Amino acid sequence: MSSKASDGLSRRLVLGALAAAPTLPALLGATIAEAQAAAADPLPSWKERSAKFAILEFIQATTSDPSSATFVPPEERVATFDQDGTLWVEHPMYTQVVYCLDRVRAVVKEKPELAEAEPFKTVLTGDLEAIAKLSMHDLEEILAATLTGMDVDAFDAEARAWIDAAKDHRWKRLYTELTYQPMQEVLSYFRANGFKTYIVTGGGQDFVRVYSDRVYGIPREQVIGTAGGVKYGYDKDGKQFLTKEPKLLLNDNFAGKPEGIHLEIGRRPRAAFGNSTGDQQMLEYTKGGDGLRLSMIVLHDDAKREYAYGPAQGLPDTRVGTFTQALFDEAKKDGWYVISMKDDWKRIFAFE
Amino acid sequence: MSSKASDGLSRRLVLGALAAAPTLPALLGATIAEAQAAAADPLPSWKERSAKFAILEFIQATTSDPSSATFVPPEERVATFDQDGTLWVEHPMYTQVVYCLDRVRAVVKEKPELAEAEPFKTVLTGDLEAIAKLSMHDLEEILAATLTGMDVDAFDAEARAWIDAAKDHRWKRLYTELTYQPMQEVLSYFRANGFKTYIVTGGGQDFVRVYSDRVYGIPREQVIGTAGGVKYGYDKDGKQFLTKEPKLLLNDNFAGKPEGIHLEIGRRPRAAFGNSTGDQQMLEYTKGGDGLRLSMIVLHDDAKREYAYGPAQGLPDTRVGTFTQALFDEAKKDGWYVISMKDDWKRIFAFE
Repeated sequence: MSSKASDGLSRRLVLGALAAAPTLPALLGATIAEAQAAAADPLPSWKERSAKFAILEFIQATTSDPSSATFVPPEERVATFDQDGTLWVEHPMYTQVVYCLDRVRAVVKEKPELAEAEPFKTVLTGDLEAIAKLSMHDLEEILAATLTGMDVDAFDAEARAWIDAAKDHRWKRLYTELTYQPMQEVLSYFRANGFKTYIVTGGGQDFVRVYSDRVYGIPREQVIGTAGGVKYGYDKDGKQFLTKEPKLLLNDNFAGKPEGIHLEIGRRPRAAFGNSTGDQQMLEYTKGGDGLRLSMIVLHDDAKREYAYGPAQGLPDTRVGTFTQALFDEAKKDGWYVISMKDDWKRIFAFE
Repeated sequence: MSSKASDGLSRRLVLGALAAAPTLPALLGATIAEAQAAAADPLPSWKERSAKFAILEFIQATTSDPSSATFVPPEERVATFDQDGTLWVEHPMYTQVVYCLDRVRAVVKEKPELAEAEPFKTVLTGDLEAIAKLSMHDLEEILAATLTGMDVDAFDAEARAWIDAAKDHRWKRLYTELTYQPMQEVLSYFRANGFKTYIVTGGGQDFVRVYSDRVYGIPREQVIGTAGGVKYGYDKDGKQFLTKEPKLLLNDNFAGKPEGIHLEIGRRPRAAFGNSTGDQQMLEYTKGGDGLRLSMIVLHDDAKREYAYGPAQGLPDTRVGTFTQALFDEAKKDGWYVISMKDDWKRIFAFE
């Protein structure tokens, strides 16, 4: 597509988006700031390319004309977003794993006997190379020790204190600043048009709920994630509390994503965004529904501004947020859109 | 309290409720009809007694003055409602159990060999006395056969067709007409004041979601109930679907209620309504939170207009919606309000 044709199409679509300006009912769930943002170009950090047009077209087709075959009634407007690698940075390591490793120190303070036991001993050395070599079993032991056994409110307070202070090593910024500005615009644009936005993450549901409202404008109850059981009980004064148990209730990865969506929403999403093999089934399930559906997948192909990994398209392989060539081929075959961070996004972060 | 004093208090509270008329943001989640209802007496089917005043006072204290210590920010306004016996009739048998018994006929049509096998054989006789004697194990077998093994959308369509046609034997009306008008007013009043209303039911989550929006104004995603696992798969054309599995994920009764609330909402409710021992932990958990909380429990003491059962307060004992004297005593001791259907409700049903 020539730049000129592209500009023309872009202009038509932006004008179309304005003509399909959200009605009052559509705005009921939106903040005033979101409504104002939607009235101008709703996706200013996106380049004028097919990924952006796909989003604009989808919103116009599903929300502007109630007599249209592609119109979606407000109550059915559900859009789901993976978090790690889709809404914020996941390399070199998932933020929640960094949290768990940091928490080992506090756990050992309470249970000093663990200091000499593996895998805690290795974590305490701070030797990143050795830590990276820990087995999946070791990692599970660390997650269980740092994420379970406490009152849910105590966990919430601990995680909140950490996320308010901990910084990423590359940008020296709070992890919560490392969200992708183009995706923040997508979240706001969907909400301004009456969509309920959900996070559907392989990360811990209780962890992401700590900051989802503040960071993404997504309330706690719209976060679906990997969840352990909790156990209801009474303390010595008869006060009720819930304890986080080391019992997996929902592994919100792969097939667990559509299964978790059914459990906690009960509606097939109209639009879904992901970035890795863990999102495959959610993107298939979304795109496979009746009527107009939108599935989009972020490709990390920008080593300069963020990271580059696949192994799709010859990008370096990774264990964190794997995007295989088979997944890339499925996306192309089934009409999902691949979002190239390098080519589709004018900027990555709000602080740039 | 004399009738005159009661009227005076009522007038003050209704005037107070008007003074604390919901602001625009509070109304964002409310329909226009709900807003208009809230502007007059929001609870016209309630007698001027302490239960009604408790609700009016709670809403005024939590929503009218942001500088008040009892004010609750909009995002934390969560109210949870048991369904069977709290929002609609549960006697002589839970509606969903009637559905399952009715479905046995369709199941046998697909698997004729079951017609001669117990407990299906007994159900097919239609002998209610014999059916009532089935063991818990028999009942579980019937639930598994009628509620699992099919695509979630197929289940949804089947349950919808049934609930749109099946009638209760006493009133000869659709089950969906047998909701309590005073509780419908409470749902609307809470929503008009910015509360998110949730159903938290021991019944099947997928079953109640079929009609929750239409009957209670509560969207599918705000229904928490007993839930089985679902399994993601592909049909022969590669189309994705979810199958309901005979695997219990959440038993949303007793301690399962606060546990399910944590899983699917992640916030401790500010107000909760129930009617039986299955709601005890939800009511405790709600009332036990910081700040102002409201726990209310419906006592079925009106054999004439509905049913009378306990065994609290010397009412007849029952296995369906048991309200023990111990639970009654806990309610009084811990500052929950007991709602007497006989004394607190001017009318029970909208069709009266």
